[in-house]
Amino acid sequence: MVAPVLDRRDLEFMIYELFDAEGLTTRPRYEDHNRESFDAAIDTAKALAEKYLLPNRLKVDQNQPTFDGVKVDMPAEIKIACDAIAEAGLISPSADFESGGMQLPAIVASAACGYLTAAGSTVAGYAGLSNANANLIDAHGTEEQKRKWVDPMRVGRFAGTMAMSEPNAGSGLADLTTTAEKNEQGDYLVTGNKIWISGGDHDLNENIVHLVLARVKGAPKGVKGISLFIVPKFLVNDDGSLGERNDVQLAGLFHKMGGRGQTSTALSFGEKGGAVGYLVGEENKGLSYMFHMMNEARVMVGTSAALTALTGYQYSLDYAKERPQGRLPSAKDPNSAPVNIIEHADVKRMLLAQKAYGEGALALCLMGAQLADDEKTAETEEERKQAHLLLDFLTPMIKTWPSEYGPKANSLAIQVLGGSGYVNEHPVEMFYRDNRLNPIHEGTTGIQSIDLLARKVPMKNMAGYQAALAAMADTIAQARGDEALLSYADELEAAIATLKTTTEKLLGAMMEQDIDLALSNSVKYLELFGNVVIAWMWLKQGIVASAALAKQPHESDENFYRGKLHAMRYFFKFELPEINAWAALLQSIDSTSHEMNINWF
Amino acid sequence: MVAPVLDRRDLEFMIYELFDAEGLTTRPRYEDHNRESFDAAIDTAKALAEKYLLPNRLKVDQNQPTFDGVKVDMPAEIKIACDAIAEAGLISPSADFESGGMQLPAIVASAACGYLTAAGSTVAGYAGLSNANANLIDAHGTEEQKRKWVDPMRVGRFAGTMAMSEPNAGSGLADLTTTAEKNEQGDYLVTGNKIWISGGDHDLNENIVHLVLARVKGAPKGVKGISLFIVPKFLVNDDGSLGERNDVQLAGLFHKMGGRGQTSTALSFGEKGGAVGYLVGEENKGLSYMFHMMNEARVMVGTSAALTALTGYQYSLDYAKERPQGRLPSAKDPNSAPVNIIEHADVKRMLLAQKAYGEGALALCLMGAQLADDEKTAETEEERKQAHLLLDFLTPMIKTWPSEYGPKANSLAIQVLGGSGYVNEHPVEMFYRDNRLNPIHEGTTGIQSIDLLARKVPMKNMAGYQAALAAMADTIAQARGDEALLSYADELEAAIATLKTTTEKLLGAMMEQDIDLALSNSVKYLELFGNVVIAWMWLKQGIVASAALAKQPHESDENFYRGKLHAMRYFFKFELPEINAWAALLQSIDSTSHEMNINWF
Repeated sequence: MVAPVLDRRDLEFMIYELFDAEGLTTRPRYEDHNRESFDAAIDTAKALAEKYLLPNRLKVDQNQPTFDGVKVDMPAEIKIACDAIAEAGLISPSADFESGGMQLPAIVASAACGYLTAAGSTVAGYAGLSNANANLIDAHGTEEQKRKWVDPMRVGRFAGTMAMSEPNAGSGLADLTTTAEKNEQGDYLVTGNKIWISGGDHDLNENIVHLVLARVKGAPKGVKGISLFIVPKFLVNDDGSLGERNDVQLAGLFHKMGGRGQTSTALSFGEKGGAVGYLVGEENKGLSYMFHMMNEARVMVGTSAALTALTGYQYSLDYAKERPQGRLPSAKDPNSAPVNIIEHADVKRMLLAQKAYGEGALALCLMGAQLADDEKTAETEEERKQAHLLLDFLTPMIKTWPSEYGPKANSLAIQVLGGSGYVNEHPVEMFYRDNRLNPIHEGTTGIQSIDLLARKVPMKNMAGYQAALAAMADTIAQARGDEALLSYADELEAAIATLKTTTEKLLGAMMEQDIDLALSNSVKYLELFGNVVIAWMWLKQGIVASAALAKQPHESDENFYRGKLHAMRYFFKFELPEINAWAALLQSIDSTSHEMNINWF
Repeated sequence: MVAPVLDRRDLEFMIYELFDAEGLTTRPRYEDHNRESFDAAIDTAKALAEKYLLPNRLKVDQNQPTFDGVKVDMPAEIKIACDAIAEAGLISPSADFESGGMQLPAIVASAACGYLTAAGSTVAGYAGLSNANANLIDAHGTEEQKRKWVDPMRVGRFAGTMAMSEPNAGSGLADLTTTAEKNEQGDYLVTGNKIWISGGDHDLNENIVHLVLARVKGAPKGVKGISLFIVPKFLVNDDGSLGERNDVQLAGLFHKMGGRGQTSTALSFGEKGGAVGYLVGEENKGLSYMFHMMNEARVMVGTSAALTALTGYQYSLDYAKERPQGRLPSAKDPNSAPVNIIEHADVKRMLLAQKAYGEGALALCLMGAQLADDEKTAETEEERKQAHLLLDFLTPMIKTWPSEYGPKANSLAIQVLGGSGYVNEHPVEMFYRDNRLNPIHEGTTGIQSIDLLARKVPMKNMAGYQAALAAMADTIAQARGDEALLSYADELEAAIATLKTTTEKLLGAMMEQDIDLALSNSVKYLELFGNVVIAWMWLKQGIVASAALAKQPHESDENFYRGKLHAMRYFFKFELPEINAWAALLQSIDSTSHEMNINWF
């Protein structure tokens, strides 16, 4: 049995039919591209995933990196795969042609790299981190910094990390204590300890470029005193060759439940007097620069969660098609042959749920990628600003919904396999472990929910919120043109009305009542908003599928589109109605959590 | 930081205040017991758990058993712990005094053994299996079989297993193919392959007693042709000494995501001509005997899931009390000190949810144990029959609700710890892996749901269903005597009305419509019934807590009871209302899963 890594047909549906990636080729930045070049990039990534990642994923999982005090040891297959990804130009497929990139739209790059993530999310994660790091320096660094650090990262000579958390400052970055002191050369000496640094040390690349948050001595307390520094593992000479070892040391590796291909490290900066660091932008503005990378990383996390859900879906689907077991309730004769388990209604439910979660989540993430394209390349400044606004607003949902429902999907994949799903002969238990990180890193679900309710909803006079509602209203209006979709349009409209009422009550409470109480159920609000947004993604997919069916496509396409409509139906019947219970709770400004006395636990 | 394995105060609340275990001492079987002897048994188990299981749980997790083709190798700490459990009389604490047992009520035995399970569920699992195996032979075996197999299992000389699943017959036992042929001595020769046999081979005990389902040659097809056999690893002479090796071989070990202390094995019976087996009871009635063990195992699974949820709760609670991070939304000053994370409303929500899931689930499981006591020792036959009926009816919920919500609780424990929850420095990621088996083994959630809706609800003219409703109505009536509980009584009553309407619609559909359609959402029905039953358990706890508070207890007890009331409030506000969405779906006889065409996936 070889289950596909992803459903190629669905990926093409998403980028070409749902989001019209081909339309982007009329924009100057993408004018050298066409459907063929997009497909070729996806083909390349798919072939690479199948050759270098898929066959080794269990080995990588079962042999997590070790550290003997000197060197990190990991399966050789990881370096081979990383080199192949770099060689194929897939570290920074969206970068400019002149920087060695393919200048691909983000939505196509996401689809292509989706194969790498689905087949080996943590190995592919090295490239993703390097790319996000390079993008930050590209946006906020000097020309010299770009030349020195960005170009080598784009081609895989150097790797990149993001060094924020400290033992006493994880979610609460305001309290970070790593310090930086200006030296005579105008550089800085960085001292402190960082933890949870993915890819913090390894020998996969010549050098590692850490982007480090630290406080310049004398800086204000809190988030307004944080600066951002480039701190390389090896200093780099002006000709680009490696100089001496910088004062940053691996203090240890964490042993994670999943995602084991990627080292998670504790790093010590400045044990021998100070690690040389180079300021990015201005002092004390580091956190805002880091958000450039963090927002990108948040979309990456959501996408990775969606893809891990989908590859688990494909695997369990394949299994269900081939595994005979039991009979339907209507078949009482023990002499009748057992059916394949895909015939059982409850197995169909578990597969439909995975499909609805995974494809709904991926649609949202790819819409995020499309908005990233638009904020960069849409024709008018107004369109670019609107795209930025909407992406910014939706980021908490893009990060969180897939991260919360991805593990649920993987749990259902396990359940479809039964006992076989619980053992390492099959990868679904690994997907379940891998995916569990996603609600934690790059801002936990709790952090995302506060970001949404306390910052993103009110920001710019609620412009982001209104933009999201307007976009959803457009989809509903479009759906009303198709009789088959009327009831779904109504249901989404009702859900949005519920969302609006809930939002108004919460904003009222934030102004008039105890702010700690008003924000105390922010996670339920994020859940509500997330389910509405995913229902929106399903209605969007339903519109395309229904229109395509009207054109009487050939049989395999007909099946495909009917599957889309049925997964939409599943989501609207089984998942969307749950928001009513959450809305009632939220609208009452429920104080259960807020009022819990800690001595009562 | 040493988090308690379990909250002893809560355990005592459950068995003494909620379920009145002391009241059992008026019954002849328990007349030698009193509160002191019950407490002593719990003390023993707690001390043993803390000495032999807790310190080794990570080692056991990280060094799963290996098989070199000859012998199973596992950490020595497992045998030391198993021997200590046997030595302390905790394999069969409910067995008769004359069989070496402590003749403890099941509810007290469950509480005591709860410490073993919470501190090391898979190591404790060996004892649980032996006990359930011995209980089956006690109930259905001959006197000679009891002497030969039961007594040595009760004291830990022999271990027991349950050998049902085969490579092509897991959930679908009707298709099992292992055969048994009568030999000249009147015994049987058993031939076939079994998989997923927990504890199927090891050197922890002198001998292993497999209870094997097989077909006698010529038996009818399906479940009506299945017989049950005792097939030991070593034959046993009449004086109880070990005889020759039987023809059962370890074919291999499975490598599980969690629960790694307990071997999960593939066994070959009869590779050299046939393993000697001894028939239990009559031919072709094996499945009904096995259900004796399976029902006990199902309650064990639910209990284990609840306890794993609770030990994760204790761990994350302890962590949340000691980990400073961030500030409340109302505290803007970066110079203010960070608070311990237990102060954050969302962390309180995650702890409350764990408490509500774990304690709600454990109350249900202990009610199951109380019913097991009652079916054995209640004064009148009518009471014994009623207890048996209710326990039988509730078993799908007792097995499933804790198994589904236990992993949710453990996921929240991970989330409370953040990144620390994802690494093996802390045990919460292990709990999450361990607990994920519970919705699978001893009948998956899907199997339980069909058992509930197609068998347990209609059985005996709906007598079990009516008994459950009547018991819930009693609790509601009692709650109405306490003003503080009125709204909860109303909400549970409304939920039961919803459950009733749903049940009627489904039974109607089962009679009048396609049975495959009518049963297609059985899992949602089980979810609905489960949430109602757990709300019932919370109202029961609320009644006791509210009455205790009225007596103005000392401060720590006051805090404890207020915590109970607040967890009840959490369950009624956050969890119970979700049933309305499920009920609407079920009452419409939704055909989404049923109608999904397999070609549309």
